[in-house]
Amino acid sequence: MKNKKLKKKIPVGILGATGMVGQKFVELLINHPWFEIAALMASEKSVGKKYREAVTMWQGSEPIPSHVADMEVRACKPDINPVRGPRFKRDRNQRFLTSNGVNCKIVFSALDPIAAQEFEEDFAHAGYNVVSNARIHRMDDNVPLLVPEINPDHLELIKTQSYKGCIVTNPNCSTIGLVIALKPLLDNFGIEKVNVVTLQALSGAGYPGVASLDIVDNVIPFISGEEDKVENEPQKIFGSYAGSKIEYNDIAISAQCNRVGVRHGHLECVNLKLKQRVREKDIIHAWRTFSSEPQELNLPLAPQHPVYYFDNDYLPQPKYQRDFDKGMAVSIGRLQNKHVFDYKFVVLSHNLVRGAAGGAILNAELMVEKGYV
Amino acid sequence: MKNKKLKKKIPVGILGATGMVGQKFVELLINHPWFEIAALMASEKSVGKKYREAVTMWQGSEPIPSHVADMEVRACKPDINPVRGPRFKRDRNQRFLTSNGVNCKIVFSALDPIAAQEFEEDFAHAGYNVVSNARIHRMDDNVPLLVPEINPDHLELIKTQSYKGCIVTNPNCSTIGLVIALKPLLDNFGIEKVNVVTLQALSGAGYPGVASLDIVDNVIPFISGEEDKVENEPQKIFGSYAGSKIEYNDIAISAQCNRVGVRHGHLECVNLKLKQRVREKDIIHAWRTFSSEPQELNLPLAPQHPVYYFDNDYLPQPKYQRDFDKGMAVSIGRLQNKHVFDYKFVVLSHNLVRGAAGGAILNAELMVEKGYV
Amino acid sequence: MKNKKLKKKIPVGILGATGMVGQKFVELLINHPWFEIAALMASEKSVGKKYREAVTMWQGSEPIPSHVADMEVRACKPDINPVRGPRFKRDRNQRFLTSNGVNCKIVFSALDPIAAQEFEEDFAHAGYNVVSNARIHRMDDNVPLLVPEINPDHLELIKTQSYKGCIVTNPNCSTIGLVIALKPLLDNFGIEKVNVVTLQALSGAGYPGVASLDIVDNVIPFISGEEDKVENEPQKIFGSYAGSKIEYNDIAISAQCNRVGVRHGHLECVNLKLKQRVREKDIIHAWRTFSSEPQELNLPLAPQHPVYYFDNDYLPQPKYQRDFDKGMAVSIGRLQNKHVFDYKFVVLSHNLVRGAAGGAILNAELMVEKGYV
Amino acid sequence: MKNKKLKKKIPVGILGATGMVGQKFVELLINHPWFEIAALMASEKSVGKKYREAVTMWQGSEPIPSHVADMEVRACKPDINPVRGPRFKRDRNQRFLTSNGVNCKIVFSALDPIAAQEFEEDFAHAGYNVVSNARIHRMDDNVPLLVPEINPDHLELIKTQSYKGCIVTNPNCSTIGLVIALKPLLDNFGIEKVNVVTLQALSGAGYPGVASLDIVDNVIPFISGEEDKVENEPQKIFGSYAGSKIEYNDIAISAQCNRVGVRHGHLECVNLKLKQRVREKDIIHAWRTFSSEPQELNLPLAPQHPVYYFDNDYLPQPKYQRDFDKGMAVSIGRLQNKHVFDYKFVVLSHNLVRGAAGGAILNAELMVEKGYV
Repeated sequence: MKNKKLKKKIPVGILGATGMVGQKFVELLINHPWFEIAALMASEKSVGKKYREAVTMWQGSEPIPSHVADMEVRACKPDINPVRGPRFKRDRNQRFLTSNGVNCKIVFSALDPIAAQEFEEDFAHAGYNVVSNARIHRMDDNVPLLVPEINPDHLELIKTQSYKGCIVTNPNCSTIGLVIALKPLLDNFGIEKVNVVTLQALSGAGYPGVASLDIVDNVIPFISGEEDKVENEPQKIFGSYAGSKIEYNDIAISAQCNRVGVRHGHLECVNLKLKQRVREKDIIHAWRTFSSEPQELNLPLAPQHPVYYFDNDYLPQPKYQRDFDKGMAVSIGRLQNKHVFDYKFVVLSHNLVRGAAGGAILNAELMVEKGYV
Repeated sequence: MKNKKLKKKIPVGILGATGMVGQKFVELLINHPWFEIAALMASEKSVGKKYREAVTMWQGSEPIPSHVADMEVRACKPDINPVRGPRFKRDRNQRFLTSNGVNCKIVFSALDPIAAQEFEEDFAHAGYNVVSNARIHRMDDNVPLLVPEINPDHLELIKTQSYKGCIVTNPNCSTIGLVIALKPLLDNFGIEKVNVVTLQALSGAGYPGVASLDIVDNVIPFISGEEDKVENEPQKIFGSYAGSKIEYNDIAISAQCNRVGVRHGHLECVNLKLKQRVREKDIIHAWRTFSSEPQELNLPLAPQHPVYYFDNDYLPQPKYQRDFDKGMAVSIGRLQNKHVFDYKFVVLSHNLVRGAAGGAILNAELMVEKGYV
Repeated sequence: MKNKKLKKKIPVGILGATGMVGQKFVELLINHPWFEIAALMASEKSVGKKYREAVTMWQGSEPIPSHVADMEVRACKPDINPVRGPRFKRDRNQRFLTSNGVNCKIVFSALDPIAAQEFEEDFAHAGYNVVSNARIHRMDDNVPLLVPEINPDHLELIKTQSYKGCIVTNPNCSTIGLVIALKPLLDNFGIEKVNVVTLQALSGAGYPGVASLDIVDNVIPFISGEEDKVENEPQKIFGSYAGSKIEYNDIAISAQCNRVGVRHGHLECVNLKLKQRVREKDIIHAWRTFSSEPQELNLPLAPQHPVYYFDNDYLPQPKYQRDFDKGMAVSIGRLQNKHVFDYKFVVLSHNLVRGAAGGAILNAELMVEKGYV
Repeated sequence: MKNKKLKKKIPVGILGATGMVGQKFVELLINHPWFEIAALMASEKSVGKKYREAVTMWQGSEPIPSHVADMEVRACKPDINPVRGPRFKRDRNQRFLTSNGVNCKIVFSALDPIAAQEFEEDFAHAGYNVVSNARIHRMDDNVPLLVPEINPDHLELIKTQSYKGCIVTNPNCSTIGLVIALKPLLDNFGIEKVNVVTLQALSGAGYPGVASLDIVDNVIPFISGEEDKVENEPQKIFGSYAGSKIEYNDIAISAQCNRVGVRHGHLECVNLKLKQRVREKDIIHAWRTFSSEPQELNLPLAPQHPVYYFDNDYLPQPKYQRDFDKGMAVSIGRLQNKHVFDYKFVVLSHNLVRGAAGGAILNAELMVEKGYV
């Protein structure tokens, strides 16, 4: 497919559309140039309600457009009833059809792990391309843990899947900023080991998530399961596609994860040991010149610059840089070499955009552009 | 001196009495069993006002007792006028005298660096024991950087000072939690190198300090000058007193300092490499059994336990553990060995109490108890 | 009973001991001079656990003392099994007995409305004096809605109750500051009508209560059911005890209740129309000289001053005045007369202490002192 | 002028361009269809710096575009040097000229009161149309206090000014939400008196403004000078233009102003007495159908709906509605009639947009469209 030639938008569904990540999918897809929302699916308590009623507290800064607000929320089932109204139909396989007969090929998943476990494979078996933010299939052997700037070739893995459709995942919200910051260093200098301490935002815990009494005038030095993800996902992401499987990278990572009273934007303090000695300015140059396939393909949600490096000691800050390049850029600052564990720096990324819904949409854009959908 | 035999309280002065740390000195000294506040000194704009008027916003949870609230704030000069009222006089050296003729021997300093530079030596030359929280003399060759649980023998250094009185300092608020956590490990297992990432409280920046717009829904990945202190003070604190000078310890430390929206209590995420391999339970045992001179001497402000270790993954948290043992204990949790940089854990201490006013008062208590005053 | 003659502490139970209010009961009773905790009762999921394990996050600033931390949490049933250990037994009526055979006569209730509805009457029927913070029986005809500074005579109502024991309630946390501020004005000048806008603290919603994403960088202009309580409870509190019933006061009140990101302390902006024209200084004098039965009886938890008035325009503030007089005082400031709705001022009270657990304990102290227990 | 016919953008200057309101002017003008930024002016310490360097912390969510970031900040003087580069020149009166010879006729002022006092009249005398957010000239007899939805006819006042140019002001950030909410009620039902309690955002105090220690876990019941503005500006805004002067409306208003820990968006709790009895639904209808001159003229920054009314009890909230209609709409909810002071409701508006920079720009748009510029 060529960007320019897309005549009809591709209808997409959203699984878990009412939660924090689900709402962000909706917000990012409302004016998406390639995709249009064809189905909103959620748990039993929302099914049958209008989306505007099913959403307890809409998190977007503008009201939900009425054509989405009035959509009826469906159950998470691949045998979806025909979408009401003239715009969408079903084909013989019960997949969405637009009025022009185009299949609804893509279903984004913002499901929690238990629901993802239950439903995602059903959709994949039924022929949908499941582009998931859930963690449950991330480490499966034949499921790409995809970051378009890092490992677009891992998409080939889906050919080894036995589904009629496929499952593609994106990393955890605390992993993504780290791996994008590390990628240019890994390619240029080699990395031996990494230590990371995170200051993670509240929206990473979903809604209602963190109780206000736990975070006003406080921080919490623990996020259940989070350190494992940051320590283990990068090896797969940085792994080599070796004909039908991924050979994991052997980078050693240690993480300490904290929750802080920030709405959005995970800040991470990184220390690392490179495989060779380099000057700070070479590292900064590697970051500033980093560009990859999403930029070359000019994908709609690709950040213009995957990485911003700031010379100002006080940056990056969650409040001020998290929305750069539509929330898809990663911001870095404070590179220092103190000769203890070599280099240290801080990195920031938007956990709900680059680290969740936006990352998944970029994955889908890559899949479309490269003909996997 | 023996604790039991103290008949008269020792009159003390406070330099910089109106700021955040100065107020904490006042709060902690109001009911102190050994010391009584004889003079409150501050900058020009406060001189001549009653303390209650000079303090913009009293931070204590109870009102200022009237005998302190009504004291007149004096200039930071060692030729202090006699305290008004019958209780205090001056001796021939212009030092405070109580009605019983006891010299005001101790002056606590909560001055900012510039004022401390200007005034502390004047007081020391005039015969006062200056127990300072300011950073300006911390690294002076003949000035103890004193932590009573760690290096009480460093007090001997003051004999090499040329002042009629002396200057004794306590560490930076972000250093103190770290060194107390490290001390039992250093003694028992040896430490090679340390990485620390701090999540520091707002009160560490004084008042007005951090602007609210900089911290609501935000964190700041930089505190000017802070990383240097954390990286350099421990070597002196852990140094050996070698007859008139301190031989610095060679522990290597790297720090990244962040400001978070917490009122009080610095949380620090520590990674370290020990000189020998040990079991986690041995480390925990070393912390839980750690006790030192302040505990043996039963100093009034000594924490019962210098270190608490928590098995609960979610602890310590600033809000919930910062006030343990009158704010003088250090709380530790989340010890893990992930074989990247060996061990990691989190440590919490109250920056205004253990890390500032309380630490200085404990220093003074040690000085009194051991006969240096 | 005379204060001085109390030889043995009175054993008390706490219903709903693990929640925010229950924990505050525990904290305030730990060192209470008259009462000692004999039983901690909570919902099914806590029963059988040690209190330290049943409490998810202990909110006190010091650790739970071990004799309380190790108590086994019981079910909310009046046929309580004998307390383990030598200290407490049961009498023939299944009520608590101390080792000295004193009945556990008082049970404090921090139950939510549904549990209170289910259990409080059972305890009252079984002979316990139920001193409740729950709302469910507050407006019952024969149940005192007691504020010892305002309507101590309402306690007589319990003689009309058919329980073997009794039920006594205290007002809602947003009502209490208002009625204490109004009482001296009502007595001295008469009040026609009142408008109040509240800025209420997070702990008023219990735990987990308000989601952090709902309150960081936000306020919420609604608290379900709250406005009704503030508008209707004062009429009963200010009512006259008229031999077996309360004749309600006819003061007209309108309330708008907001939630703000403060941990503890409800601030309320009040406007009112007095029945007579008075000078501001007369109003301030009425507040500053207000003293009542708890102060005369010198009850342990009575605030020395029920009301503080501040001349400083910036006061009261939740952070700085909520803990005055052990959290039992009410702080007022900013009295103005702008001739629109007559007078306006702001009032602050600690919602968990004066507005919940502390208020209930003061009620119990009054009951003991006046011989109702 | 007709919207459609604007061929060249109008060059505008910003006085006080580096502060919170100044930055918001820049942000809102960057892509403005009619105006283009020709000069950024600020105090001495910024003069000569590039705008990107003069701004301590850029508050926008996207980076400053480089053509603005690289502009040199000028002094606040009407004899401005020619703007560097080919785009702008000066005419004989030292006013800005674009390359097409169009005068820079409009200067927006975000100056603090003292600077506004000093500089605004200089610009007006020099021939500029000063569209000011400063309070200093708001209540001047011949200066319009302009809200385009309410009193567009007040613009005629500038004909009575003796300046070569003119001065036009917009109301205080806590006044604007109130008057827009009141306008439909005033027109339809008449208003006798109003009580308002505000919960105001931090950005209203500028930068650095409120200290974080004053607002984390706290609210402040006082904002210096604010209550007077809310109580007095509406009478002028609602006044009648009576041939060369404004006859003030006699509406009586009382205000209590509080600061809360919200970044942007003032919430106000309003009580009022109408001149006639109406049904709640009539009030809601008046709000929902309210539309005025800016909507009719389709001014670029006019909100589509000046007023949104929400049926959901939990709305409006600062975080969720402040950005509606580009931050220019006013959101209302919770209308109730409790028969104490008649009606009550809450109203929310964005203090930096509708209440400051956005309001001033809308004023300028009206002036351009109606031929005053």
